[in-house]
Amino acid sequence: MYSLTTVQIYCKSTKGLTEFSWLITLRCMNALLSIFRKLLSQKLTQPFIIHNFNFALGSRYVSKTATKTVSEFEYDAPSMKTAVPGPKSQELLRQLGEIQNVGAIHFFCNYEESRGNYLVDVDGNRMLDVYTQISSIPIGDGYNHPGLNRSAFVNRPALGILPPENFPDKLIESLLSIAPSGMTRVQTMACGSCSNENAFKTMFIWYRNKERGYAIPSEQEVGTCMINQSPGCPDLSILSFMGAFHGRTLGCLATTHSKVIHKLDIPSFDWPIAPFPKLQYPLEEFVRENAQEEARCLEEAEDLIVKWRQKGKPVAGIVIEPIQAEGGDNHASPDFFIKLRNIARKHGCAFHVDEVQTGGGTTGKFWAHEHWGLDDPADVVSFSKKLLTGGYYHRDELQPDKPYRIFNTWMGDPSKNLFLSELLNVIRRENLLEEVMRSGKTLLQAHFGFLIHAMVKIKMGKYMGGKNLKNRVWYSAFGPLFNFVRFRPRIFISVHP
Amino acid sequence: MYSLTTVQIYCKSTKGLTEFSWLITLRCMNALLSIFRKLLSQKLTQPFIIHNFNFALGSRYVSKTATKTVSEFEYDAPSMKTAVPGPKSQELLRQLGEIQNVGAIHFFCNYEESRGNYLVDVDGNRMLDVYTQISSIPIGDGYNHPGLNRSAFVNRPALGILPPENFPDKLIESLLSIAPSGMTRVQTMACGSCSNENAFKTMFIWYRNKERGYAIPSEQEVGTCMINQSPGCPDLSILSFMGAFHGRTLGCLATTHSKVIHKLDIPSFDWPIAPFPKLQYPLEEFVRENAQEEARCLEEAEDLIVKWRQKGKPVAGIVIEPIQAEGGDNHASPDFFIKLRNIARKHGCAFHVDEVQTGGGTTGKFWAHEHWGLDDPADVVSFSKKLLTGGYYHRDELQPDKPYRIFNTWMGDPSKNLFLSELLNVIRRENLLEEVMRSGKTLLQAHFGFLIHAMVKIKMGKYMGGKNLKNRVWYSAFGPLFNFVRFRPRIFISVHP
Repeated sequence: MYSLTTVQIYCKSTKGLTEFSWLITLRCMNALLSIFRKLLSQKLTQPFIIHNFNFALGSRYVSKTATKTVSEFEYDAPSMKTAVPGPKSQELLRQLGEIQNVGAIHFFCNYEESRGNYLVDVDGNRMLDVYTQISSIPIGDGYNHPGLNRSAFVNRPALGILPPENFPDKLIESLLSIAPSGMTRVQTMACGSCSNENAFKTMFIWYRNKERGYAIPSEQEVGTCMINQSPGCPDLSILSFMGAFHGRTLGCLATTHSKVIHKLDIPSFDWPIAPFPKLQYPLEEFVRENAQEEARCLEEAEDLIVKWRQKGKPVAGIVIEPIQAEGGDNHASPDFFIKLRNIARKHGCAFHVDEVQTGGGTTGKFWAHEHWGLDDPADVVSFSKKLLTGGYYHRDELQPDKPYRIFNTWMGDPSKNLFLSELLNVIRRENLLEEVMRSGKTLLQAHFGFLIHAMVKIKMGKYMGGKNLKNRVWYSAFGPLFNFVRFRPRIFISVHP
Repeated sequence: MYSLTTVQIYCKSTKGLTEFSWLITLRCMNALLSIFRKLLSQKLTQPFIIHNFNFALGSRYVSKTATKTVSEFEYDAPSMKTAVPGPKSQELLRQLGEIQNVGAIHFFCNYEESRGNYLVDVDGNRMLDVYTQISSIPIGDGYNHPGLNRSAFVNRPALGILPPENFPDKLIESLLSIAPSGMTRVQTMACGSCSNENAFKTMFIWYRNKERGYAIPSEQEVGTCMINQSPGCPDLSILSFMGAFHGRTLGCLATTHSKVIHKLDIPSFDWPIAPFPKLQYPLEEFVRENAQEEARCLEEAEDLIVKWRQKGKPVAGIVIEPIQAEGGDNHASPDFFIKLRNIARKHGCAFHVDEVQTGGGTTGKFWAHEHWGLDDPADVVSFSKKLLTGGYYHRDELQPDKPYRIFNTWMGDPSKNLFLSELLNVIRRENLLEEVMRSGKTLLQAHFGFLIHAMVKIKMGKYMGGKNLKNRVWYSAFGPLFNFVRFRPRIFISVHP
C-alpha cells in the first residue's frame, strides 16, 4: 500500500443524517494523542464529537527550495479568540439561514486574512485547515499562495460549508435583489444542468416528505436507497414537454426533448412528456385555433399526471420553459402557463420554471414568467447563463429538511456573484430592461418580423431530408423542431438610418 | 404576446446530426433581406447554409445615459479580413482536434480585442455577435464592457463553440502535460458531477456505436430516443461499487453508494453494484484474508456483468475510485485494480477511473492510479477539485463520433486552466510530489498511523445508534461506512520537534 497524505481515524458520532464537521483546531499533538488514548481506554463509551476539538497542531512550512519566502508568508501557529462558530459567524448564519439551508456550514471565513495552511474565520480565529475545502485546494497551493499571480477571489471556497464573510451580503445584493415573486430562498450552482438536477432533487425530497407526513424514513427506505431500489429511491417522475430543453446530464436529459443529438444512446427515465402548444402565426388570425391548441395540451398534461400516478410513478414536479428556447423559440400565452400552474397545484406537483435561457432581462422583464402577472408564479425557478452563476430560487416550503441533501463541493463560485452584483448595477443605472423592450420592438417590427411572418407560411418540413433514405431518417427526426434559427443578439442594436 | 430580443427565422439546413452555426456576419440589412426574399421566392430549393452568410449589420450603441463612453469603446462596424474560419483558426482547429472533438467550433476568438457587440476572431475578422455565447452574455454586458471592473479572463466564452486563441496551448501546458498514461484527449467541464455525467455519456455512446457496428442509427432508435424509450435510450448500465462516491446529479448518484443522505428520495437506475474489498489492517497480518476478499469482490463484479447482460441492461462501463474517498478512505491493492481492468476488457466494458478526489498529486503521484504501474490503466479518467476545473481524459477510441453529443454552454471555464498552468509550474519547481511522499510518511508513521491501527481494532459498530429505535435506524444505516473521519491536510505539514 502506498503512502498518502490522507489518513483516516475511526471515531464515534452523535449526529444523524448529517456529515461530520471536518475542520478542527489542534493546539497540540501530544494533547490530541492523549485524548485519543483516553478515549481508547474507555472504549469510546463517551460521545466523541469532532466539533468539540480545540487543540492545535503547531505547523511550519518545510519546502526546502522556498522555505524563507513561504515561512514569512504563513502564520506560525493557530490562534483562537472565540468559541467556534463565534458571534460574527453566528450572526451571518442567521442571515444566510433566511436564504438557504445552513446546516452544513461550520463558520464564515475571512479568505483575505487566510494564509497557506491557516484558515482565518470572521471572528479572527486562525485554524489549521486539514480538510482543504473538501479536498479541493491543489497541492502546491494554499490560501493566498504568494507564488501565484492572482486576485483574492480566486481562493475558491467550498461554499456549502465555509462561505466567505460577504457571501450573504453578495447574495442579497445580487440574486435576491432580483428574486422572482414569492421566492425568498436561493441556492447557487456551477451551471444550468446542475441547477436543474438539484431543482429536481429538491422537488423529489419535498414530495416524499409530504407523502410520508414529514416522518423519519422507514428502515426499508434507508436500506433500499443505498442500492438504487424503491422505496428508498422512489419511482417518482418529472413531467416535461416535447421540444423542451433542460440540460444534458442524465436527470435533466430525461426532460429534454428538443433534438436527437442530445438524447441518442443515453439511458433515460420513463417520465411523462406532454405536448407543448404549436401556435399559428400571425396570432391575431388564429385566436380560436391557438386557444384550442393550448386547451388540448393542458388536457393531455393533466391526463399524463393521472396516468403516471396510476402507473406507480407519481409526478413530483412539472418543469417548463416560459419560452421553449433550444427547441425552437416556441411560445405559449400567459393563460396557458397560469392554467398549467393551477393543474400542478391541484395534483400536488411542484411547478418548476426553467429560466436558464430566458432569465436575466432578455424579455424586457428580469424573468420571462413575470409576463404572466402572477403573485405566486412557481415553486422553483432555475437560472444560469446571463446570471453568470447557475442556481435556483424556491419557495420556503421546498427547503430541504436536512443539510447535505442538496450539496456538492463548490456549490457555485462566489466570484460570479461579485460580477453579477456589478452587472445588476449597470442594468439598473442604464434602465436596460426598457432598452430590451425598445430593441425587441425594433427587431421584430422593422426587420425580423417580416421574415418570421413570411417564412412560417412555407411548410419547411417537406424540404427537409437528405439524399438517401438513411440520411432522411436523421433529418426527419428533427422534424418541426429543427427548421429554425435562433438569434441571441445583445440588446444594444439599432439599424443605421 | 410580449416583445423579445430573441427572434426566430425558419430556414433549411444541409447538416445532419449537428446544430446550425450561429455566428453570422451581416454586412448589410438590405442585402440580408434580399437574400431571404430570393430564397423565399425559390421556396428554398437551394441549400441554405448559415455558414455562408457574409453580410454585416451596421450597429451602434444606443443607451441614452451612457452613449458617449460606450460609443467610443465599441467598434463602428464589422470588418472581414479572411474567409471564416481563417487560416489561424484552421491551424488551431487542427491542434485542438488532436485533443478533443472540434466539430462544434466555428472559429477561435481574440477576446482581448473583442468589444461590446463585436467579436474579433484570431484572424482579425470583426463580426457582429448575434448569438452571445449561446445566450450566456448578460444584458448590460458585452465583450470587455468598460463599466465593469474586471480582468480579461472574465469574458466567459462558450468554450465548445468559440474558444479563445490560447485554449489549445493552455490545455497542452496544463491538463495534457499531466495526462494519465495512454490518454491523449481531454474534455473540460464545470465540476466533478458534470465530469462524471459526461464521462458516462461518452461510454454509453461508445458502447452503442460498437454494438451497431458504427452504422447510422435506425429510424426506430431516432424516434424512440426523443421520448426516453428503448432502443433510442437504451437500457445500458454502469457498474459501481458499494461505498463509492461519484457525485450527486441523477446519473452520478446511481453509482454513489456512500451515505443515505445523498440517496434517499431520489429516483435512480437499476444498475449493478459490486462489493468493494474490506481489507483488514495491519496489512502484513492479513495477507491471505485480504487476497481472498479481493478475489471475492472481483468474482462478484464479473458475475454482475453477466447477470445484467442477461437482464437486457448490459454494463457499458465500470466506474471506480482508486481510493474510495467520501465512502471512507477504503483501499484495495494494485493487483485488484489490474484484474478489474482486465475484467472490463474481457467483457467489452469501458473502464472509468474517477480521480476527482484522488487526482492532483495527493498520493505522491499525480494520479492515484499510477501506483498500479499500468501502461494502459483506463479508458476514461475524470477529475475536478484540485485540478481547479472539472473534466475527463479518455482514450482516442472513446471520442464521440459527432459534435454536440458531449456539450453544454460553458464546457468548463478557461480562467481555471490559466490558474492550473501556474499551479503545475509551482508543483514542478518545488518538487511537490516528493514533498507529498514525505508528508504522508510523517503523518502515517509518526502520528496518525498509531491512531489508525489502534482504533480499527475496536468494533465501532456497537457504539453507533441513537436514543430510540427510530434514531437507531438512521445510525445503523450508515453502518461501517460512517465511522470514520477523513483528513485532507495540505502537504506542507510537519510536527514541531
